[in-house]
Amino acid sequence: MSDSLRDEVHQAARRAKVAATALATENRQRKDAVLRAMADALLDRAPEVLAANERDLAAGRAAGLTDALLDRLALTGSRLDGIAEGLRTVAGLPDPVGEVQRGSVLPNGLELRQVRVPMGVVGIVYEARPNVTVDAAGLTLKAGNAVLLRGSSSAEQSNSALVTVLRDALVANDFPADAVQLLPCADRASVQHLITARGLVDLVIPRGGAGLIDAVVRNATVPTIETGVGNCHVYVDRAAEFDVAREIVLNSKTRRPSVCNAAETLLVHAEVADKFVPEVVAALRERGVTVHGDERAVRLAEGVVPAVAEDWDTEYLSLDIALRVVDSLDEAVAHIAEHGSGHTEAVVSTDVRATRQFVARVDAAVVAVNASTAFTDGAEFGMGAEIGISTQKLHARGPMGLPELTSSKWVVWGEGHIRPAS
Amino acid sequence: MSDSLRDEVHQAARRAKVAATALATENRQRKDAVLRAMADALLDRAPEVLAANERDLAAGRAAGLTDALLDRLALTGSRLDGIAEGLRTVAGLPDPVGEVQRGSVLPNGLELRQVRVPMGVVGIVYEARPNVTVDAAGLTLKAGNAVLLRGSSSAEQSNSALVTVLRDALVANDFPADAVQLLPCADRASVQHLITARGLVDLVIPRGGAGLIDAVVRNATVPTIETGVGNCHVYVDRAAEFDVAREIVLNSKTRRPSVCNAAETLLVHAEVADKFVPEVVAALRERGVTVHGDERAVRLAEGVVPAVAEDWDTEYLSLDIALRVVDSLDEAVAHIAEHGSGHTEAVVSTDVRATRQFVARVDAAVVAVNASTAFTDGAEFGMGAEIGISTQKLHARGPMGLPELTSSKWVVWGEGHIRPAS
Repeated sequence: MSDSLRDEVHQAARRAKVAATALATENRQRKDAVLRAMADALLDRAPEVLAANERDLAAGRAAGLTDALLDRLALTGSRLDGIAEGLRTVAGLPDPVGEVQRGSVLPNGLELRQVRVPMGVVGIVYEARPNVTVDAAGLTLKAGNAVLLRGSSSAEQSNSALVTVLRDALVANDFPADAVQLLPCADRASVQHLITARGLVDLVIPRGGAGLIDAVVRNATVPTIETGVGNCHVYVDRAAEFDVAREIVLNSKTRRPSVCNAAETLLVHAEVADKFVPEVVAALRERGVTVHGDERAVRLAEGVVPAVAEDWDTEYLSLDIALRVVDSLDEAVAHIAEHGSGHTEAVVSTDVRATRQFVARVDAAVVAVNASTAFTDGAEFGMGAEIGISTQKLHARGPMGLPELTSSKWVVWGEGHIRPAS
Repeated sequence: MSDSLRDEVHQAARRAKVAATALATENRQRKDAVLRAMADALLDRAPEVLAANERDLAAGRAAGLTDALLDRLALTGSRLDGIAEGLRTVAGLPDPVGEVQRGSVLPNGLELRQVRVPMGVVGIVYEARPNVTVDAAGLTLKAGNAVLLRGSSSAEQSNSALVTVLRDALVANDFPADAVQLLPCADRASVQHLITARGLVDLVIPRGGAGLIDAVVRNATVPTIETGVGNCHVYVDRAAEFDVAREIVLNSKTRRPSVCNAAETLLVHAEVADKFVPEVVAALRERGVTVHGDERAVRLAEGVVPAVAEDWDTEYLSLDIALRVVDSLDEAVAHIAEHGSGHTEAVVSTDVRATRQFVARVDAAVVAVNASTAFTDGAEFGMGAEIGISTQKLHARGPMGLPELTSSKWVVWGEGHIRPAS
């Protein structure tokens, strides 16, 4: 890896740290004002952003990107409206900084308070979508952090234009421009330099496919939060109402098959499999879903493709679902423990004991009872916006909003207190 | 690294994961009962524990360990009493598991709750003190976790005897023995296998010197929490009362110089340096402290050793302190930002504005106003016990008690809710 690239990344991180120090003591009014100014500026300067995006799209077409990837990359006037509206939404959210999380007076009279403070310098490593550039900048800024954005090279022109607009708005509002910086993206090594900048970067969040996330988490020496891989299950208990179960399965699988909260495996209790499996398979096939079933499922319904071992561990992100018949709730819980990714797991049942057992024993960021897996989302959870969905257990688990972009500080107030020898 | 050692560590982690699944749904009554049974068993079986400790001490003496290290390694009847009492204290603490952290009913009627759940499998890597074996096992168990203990080879016999007693108590109380396991310690590679066991280990906490902590954090691919390095400062403002300032400096430096919350650098505002520096240097020297001062300090007081650049970054952990005269609060804040380790920073001042500025602008786990740095401690903060002091910003910052050994889970209750297309 080139030393000059490392220097470039580390110098950006040092500038971010200086900016973060200034941001840490900004009040909500000023932060909201700059977020709204950014929204205005994005609309005012839409032509230059869209022109930059057109250059990325042209390069993408020349490089043979798929239509799906080109669509992810594309900005339009209405998409820019949505991005600007996202900034206004963040401006309207409560400021997490300064919130007193715990507080007490100790027996010796010391006043103790734990308050939320910004995380400091946050790195975001992400793939094609240019909207992430603005969403991530808005959320990290509102939480008082400086952000280092490392987007994909296919969106370089778009990201650069967006960041220029954001930085100009920062400066115009008397904020440090280096609160938002775009890192070089031509060379993969810039990711490595970012995730090993110990002492300069407080947190890195990877957003993208499983390969990207795994590479970041494995190679980082700065703290990271693992996001997004969702091998989600729906378990239909013997006490499930079929109508409810069918609609939850269909919604969990087909609402948006490409997102991480989509269901990938259906588990059906053997006592109701004879009746429910043919019904749900027919409904899934009608929606264009390919069902990969175990032996019993293949026997019970027409058009089920025999599942292979990998199916249980596959996050299809497509109109495919694995289907297994289980003999008990225990077997369902064990299957999920072995194959789940700790994202979202749903149970459909009218039985109090079964639902309570499922909730208590399934280890995941979100456990849904008689509800679709599709509800795992920051906006649905009332967070206003999300920076990602954590599938790790440290710091944040599930959808991450503004509070998850903060740390805390203990403040101790005394009057000359000293600690006696013990 | 040998594959068989990796297999041994990973198999222990797999057994821990099975045990953790059972522990996750245990109630407080049963957890407290087994903690008390462990305390009783340690006292009942003191002779075999002390005999094992004697073997470690003999080996340590033969290997030429220093008296200080031998003292850290040594167990006595009264130390065992203290260790057992620690388990009873943990039994008396509230159970963090199941606590509802947030909860609401969403506009669509979904009931949403965020509840504390155990972290799962927690690894602890630590140095000589055998008491950590029991303290860490008690805290992790109370929070519903299985623990993998990786102690030092110099305490192998002691740790092994202690873990045998704890596991017997687990089994006698119908808990899985594998909730507490001691990993092989002869080969350093077992640490590496532990901290790279992704999917098997949820968290590793290193406890020990800076070298150990740095090695664990740098090489881990599982989440870690950085603990303990404390380059703590006391800043004496121009508005400080000298008596208060002197006592806080003396207590922060000399109460227990070898622990991480001890002060290592004193910063004095230039406006009061003429009077305060000679006074505080004399008081420090009287307590046997060597003062390493900048040019102005050397000029102002007798017996000040000229500081070199490294002094500002040194965690002495001894009767040494660095002393710098600063021209302003800004300069003090900047010095701390450059040299501090984010542990504990204290200000002594009667001025409201100065103290508020210091609190807002200094970025550390604990900021103390007119109080000794020595208060940074889980027991002092009312946590009952601590597993370490985090100096990172992710998940936990400052003293870590039982809640910091938990994660959370979102539970969503619906009645057949599906999410509309957007």
